[in-house]
Amino acid sequence: MSCLFCRIIKGEIPAFKVYETSKVYAFLDINPLAEGHTLLIPKVHGAKMHEIPDDYLAEILPAARKIALALGATQDDAFQYNVLQNNGTLAHQVVQHVHFHVIPKPNEAEGLGIGWPGKPTDFDALKKTHEALLKKLEGKL
Amino acid sequence: MSCLFCRIIKGEIPAFKVYETSKVYAFLDINPLAEGHTLLIPKVHGAKMHEIPDDYLAEILPAARKIALALGATQDDAFQYNVLQNNGTLAHQVVQHVHFHVIPKPNEAEGLGIGWPGKPTDFDALKKTHEALLKKLEGKL
Ligand SMILES: [Zn+2]
Ligand SMILES: [Zn+2]
Repeated sequence: MSCLFCRIIKGEIPAFKVYETSKVYAFLDINPLAEGHTLLIPKVHGAKMHEIPDDYLAEILPAARKIALALGATQDDAFQYNVLQNNGTLAHQVVQHVHFHVIPKPNEAEGLGIGWPGKPTDFDALKKTHEALLKKLEGKL
Repeated sequence: MSCLFCRIIKGEIPAFKVYETSKVYAFLDINPLAEGHTLLIPKVHGAKMHEIPDDYLAEILPAARKIALALGATQDDAFQYNVLQNNGTLAHQVVQHVHFHVIPKPNEAEGLGIGWPGKPTDFDALKKTHEALLKKLEGKL
């Protein structure tokens, strides 16, 4: 087994584990974007999110919620953070085992940097995309 | 009810809905970062992820998985994408109802732009963060 994260789950490589259930495992990123940057992974191997079974995916965000609260999340904006999961090299994925980042955003310099090249609203294009997506979803659900 | 996304869920404001269950609702972003950019929201109001009940959170990623497959996700890297959820203004949140972005990353110019100011590994700092997090998680779980 050469997957780094599978080896961390098995305890073959040490990690700063913060949380674990039968289906998910969470540990500190050792090159954090900000203090408390945590990785949350399913305890089944898969490179991309869409390869992970639903029962594993279902436990990810409830675990992320617990971690956010432990990191200091409150009702107001005092603690800010991003939840991010990358699929593919171009999308900034490095390790080929699905991982969700919980990344505190304490200030402009630390945490996730976000570029947002939003397109202007184009209803004709949206309609075409919508129709195509609905066809595929009808076939797949 | 002045929340834009609550009004979309209720059908008071039109949207390009692509998927819905009793707990989640998905629709096209009308200012997409790339074609197919979809928003996935819990059908309960809350501004931040940690405010949303676990049973709603549990349905988000299985729905995101369906959407990714409909958008063209495959085993290889041909279709790349990011899943992102922002909490707080500094973390790039604009609408104050929790929303998960499923954002195709077709090329460098379109899709999510990511800045990654990773810190060098500092085991002393990690140990302190780890201990503090474990204490909080023990108290909260
Ligand atoms: Zn693995
Ligand atoms: Zn709302």
